[in-house]
Amino acid sequence: MDSIPPQLPVRSKVTVTAIPGDGIGPEVMRATQQVLAAADAQVEWEEALAGAEAFRRGIASGAPRETLDSIARTGVALKGPLETPVGHGEKSANVALRKTFEMYGNVRPVRELPGIRTPFSGRGIDFVVVRENVEDVYAGIEHMQTPGVAQCLKIITEVGCERILRLAAAVAEAEGRRKVTVATKANIMKLTEGMLKRVGEQVLAEYPSLSNEHMIVDNCAHQMVIRPEQFDVAVMTNMNGDILSDLAAGLVGGLGVAPSANLGDGVAMFEAVHGSAPQIAGKGIANPTALLLSALMMLRHVGDFATARRIEHALYVTLEEGRDLTGDIAREAEGVPTQQFVDRVIANLGRESALVPAREYRPIALKRWPQITWYRAASTRELVGVDVFVESERDPRAISITLQAAAEGSAFDLAMIGSRGAQVWPEVAGHTFLVDHFRARFMFREPPKGNGIAEITDLLQRIGRQHNWMHIEKLQRFDGADAYSKA
Amino acid sequence: MDSIPPQLPVRSKVTVTAIPGDGIGPEVMRATQQVLAAADAQVEWEEALAGAEAFRRGIASGAPRETLDSIARTGVALKGPLETPVGHGEKSANVALRKTFEMYGNVRPVRELPGIRTPFSGRGIDFVVVRENVEDVYAGIEHMQTPGVAQCLKIITEVGCERILRLAAAVAEAEGRRKVTVATKANIMKLTEGMLKRVGEQVLAEYPSLSNEHMIVDNCAHQMVIRPEQFDVAVMTNMNGDILSDLAAGLVGGLGVAPSANLGDGVAMFEAVHGSAPQIAGKGIANPTALLLSALMMLRHVGDFATARRIEHALYVTLEEGRDLTGDIAREAEGVPTQQFVDRVIANLGRESALVPAREYRPIALKRWPQITWYRAASTRELVGVDVFVESERDPRAISITLQAAAEGSAFDLAMIGSRGAQVWPEVAGHTFLVDHFRARFMFREPPKGNGIAEITDLLQRIGRQHNWMHIEKLQRFDGADAYSKA
Ligand SMILES: NC(=O)c1ccc[n+]([C@@H]2O[C@H](COP(=O)([O-])OP(=O)(O)OC[C@H]3O[C@@H](n4cnc5c(N)ncnc54)[C@H](OP(=O)(O)O)[C@@H]3O)[C@@H](O)[C@H]2O)c1
Ligand SMILES: NC(=O)c1ccc[n+]([C@@H]2O[C@H](COP(=O)([O-])OP(=O)(O)OC[C@H]3O[C@@H](n4cnc5c(N)ncnc54)[C@H](OP(=O)(O)O)[C@@H]3O)[C@@H](O)[C@H]2O)c1
Repeated sequence: MDSIPPQLPVRSKVTVTAIPGDGIGPEVMRATQQVLAAADAQVEWEEALAGAEAFRRGIASGAPRETLDSIARTGVALKGPLETPVGHGEKSANVALRKTFEMYGNVRPVRELPGIRTPFSGRGIDFVVVRENVEDVYAGIEHMQTPGVAQCLKIITEVGCERILRLAAAVAEAEGRRKVTVATKANIMKLTEGMLKRVGEQVLAEYPSLSNEHMIVDNCAHQMVIRPEQFDVAVMTNMNGDILSDLAAGLVGGLGVAPSANLGDGVAMFEAVHGSAPQIAGKGIANPTALLLSALMMLRHVGDFATARRIEHALYVTLEEGRDLTGDIAREAEGVPTQQFVDRVIANLGRESALVPAREYRPIALKRWPQITWYRAASTRELVGVDVFVESERDPRAISITLQAAAEGSAFDLAMIGSRGAQVWPEVAGHTFLVDHFRARFMFREPPKGNGIAEITDLLQRIGRQHNWMHIEKLQRFDGADAYSKA
Repeated sequence: MDSIPPQLPVRSKVTVTAIPGDGIGPEVMRATQQVLAAADAQVEWEEALAGAEAFRRGIASGAPRETLDSIARTGVALKGPLETPVGHGEKSANVALRKTFEMYGNVRPVRELPGIRTPFSGRGIDFVVVRENVEDVYAGIEHMQTPGVAQCLKIITEVGCERILRLAAAVAEAEGRRKVTVATKANIMKLTEGMLKRVGEQVLAEYPSLSNEHMIVDNCAHQMVIRPEQFDVAVMTNMNGDILSDLAAGLVGGLGVAPSANLGDGVAMFEAVHGSAPQIAGKGIANPTALLLSALMMLRHVGDFATARRIEHALYVTLEEGRDLTGDIAREAEGVPTQQFVDRVIANLGRESALVPAREYRPIALKRWPQITWYRAASTRELVGVDVFVESERDPRAISITLQAAAEGSAFDLAMIGSRGAQVWPEVAGHTFLVDHFRARFMFREPPKGNGIAEITDLLQRIGRQHNWMHIEKLQRFDGADAYSKA
């Protein structure tokens, strides 16, 4: 402490968990830390292990206890790429970290960088994709329905939608942005994708400084390529966001220069989007730009806006001048080693670029969610029927006869048989190619007296005598509305 | 017949169902028919109604019986855009047509057009996206699991994968292409998306003239923006294909100039990708290029390669010279009426463009599928347990206690409780945000004697005394392998 001149305010250091990771990870991490140190960022690093070495030590998640403890303690991590092991189970250490800390929001800035030539250079692309990070088909809940029919559950929750929408709004407010585009496939999936649209209309109305719009997600992909300048903040469910954020990164130079943040309740993890690039690992030629840009997001997250701004300008000046760039982004010249690029950025600290977008950053104000099970009540509930999924090589008419016979004497009537979303009984015009997986919809003849389970299990036993069923869904009504799709 | 000079071969006319559709549909249809007539295409049109007017007449599907009959008779349709009605039920007439005729393949050529300036002009983009058209989340089978948790089923079948892969290969062969890229999210969804990858490896091996590769779908979106020249034929499941085909159209000028084909067993429907553009309908200024390009696909489909080639050259010359273009693609000049553009194309018939890619077209050789229910047998089957989805506002530990108590005396042990794909009991490190929807995995203590239904219904009754369950999945093993995901 003695060495600090008294006129300087004593800034307290922020401790950050640094996970160098695999492949080029340690190289780009070292490079990033050098730049931050040279800019006098008040960061103290707590180095932690994750990825290939952890798997080698037999840690199934790829992230040792001490690493999780470090992140839990610091609440902030900067992470290099982690290899997803082949033949070590199916989970990647990245997913493990994301799930462990419920980092539900993935924030991906998409901004034109000086000196990075793309077909869109000069158009001033500058938006942020906010992607839900834990729900949707990504849960990976799969069941083979028959030996040839696979099913994955796409699960979307109202609270999950609200969380990601509030995060998108908070990102917009933190960066002084004006518009939030909610991109969904609500026209096809009214209950799941429609939920993000509907909750979006409600939640975003609470932010009077932001305009908002809805866009069908396929059109959104098209618009991103046709007129990317129109976007400011775009928010999406997990799988759609996965595709569109990678598309968007491509517009401004690709994954090699794309930063990201994973945000959760009280935990934030910053990382480059690219992987461990094993082909160039250890050669000292990797481009640290993506991780450095991620570190700038981190500095802003911990409130050190001045240092982030200083480094950002130095980086922009470096890219703009085009000297001493790594091979992947070098223009005419040969690429230089990572260290030479780092030295150049450090030498440029203090210089100002005219190209850094004027943007007043504020901290992202994340809502804290209570640590209890989230529960949505319904004022009324009715059980009206059950969908029973059966395996059969017969045709719909034959199946309808046996199912009707099975339902005779039960509490149900057979109402419909569907095949992959198309009604096949009662017959409708046209020819539907049939696979051995049918959904039979049974409706209660009259409302059940009790919880209806005796009636359902009776039906399942009756059906089971003739057909192999593998999947049941109750048909319910909540608050007076059907809680299931028609077809 | 007398008027035909004897030296000309008498070509038999092909009957095609023409559905003008809504908004600008009739205008672009008339324009297209004029060009085909001027080029002496041997097509006889059978005009048919679908869309807004059909809905107004109270036809719920938007496609009258006569229209379906016409398509069934001709096997070939050229279709203008159909408005999806608001407040007339939830189905679009387009989806109805696609499902009625089981048009399982959507073929979308993505090719740079002369005179259509894009950021990618001059790079020679020329590939085809083949999208599965009837399966996946598009079936729209949705069930609210609780009042705040929505679920959609993503269903992928082995035969559906084989069909679309063989179609992709047939398209590649018909156009003399070399490579098929199978883009999936198999790394996350091993059973559903993984099925397309796995079947792709098997099926595409049967086409020695084609190379094939697998690409993760988010990377594929990225690659399409970064280096679109690398693609030749790309094949995808429905939802991913929806997004990536619209992205791809954006690379070469957008939906306004994007043609498409919907292919099924013995039925083909060709249409522009764009909609009815109500803002410009009736003004006589719509661009017919997309529908005309679709009509060229149709001509090739019916074997009239020479006429298709002739019109294609006239169109390319017109676009190249840049005179008399409609407003949406006119460069410096003002846009001209549709008719003036059509007259110019017709005037250019017989001229040759140097820019039309040299491509030997052959008819697409589509496999015919038997009209019986497709069935996949398994040599061995075991029933090993059941996933029961329950609604609860309690925490996992409390739920585990009541579920274990419920299972006492049953044939099952409680093995795991998951929440949106993450294990929450037995407890693992970390903090998973909990919603009121849990999956409880019960495993048979010993293999059931019979079909196991008595044991399952017994368990459901026990659980039902304490918990509201809404969804059941049997856990099976087929051919000795687990037919369900672990977490
Ligand atoms: N978040 C993460 O931790 C994460 C993300 C993605 C992938 N991964 C993992 O990384 C491993 C490799 O994945 P991958 O090969 O698919 O993708 P990748 O590591 O991103 O590498 C692809 C190519 O991109 C270039 N590249 C990427 N980052 C670069 C940088 N900073 N500087 C210079 N060039 C760079 C290299 O191209 P050239 O070869 O042309 O030089 C590299 O070969 C896998 O184990 C994967 O699971 C981890
Ligand atoms: N396959 C189909 O049948 C199909 C496909 C998509 C949409 N639709 C239906 O069409 C209706 C309108 O949909 P939408 O407004 O989303 O999309 P859209 O009809 O494609 O129109 C969007 C805009 O694209 C431009 N445009 C499209 N086609 C054009 C052409 N041939 N010539 C000149 N400009 C063209 C117009 O832009 P400017 O206004 O800038 O001139 C138009 O306003 C809806 O009812 C929708 O359900 C049908």
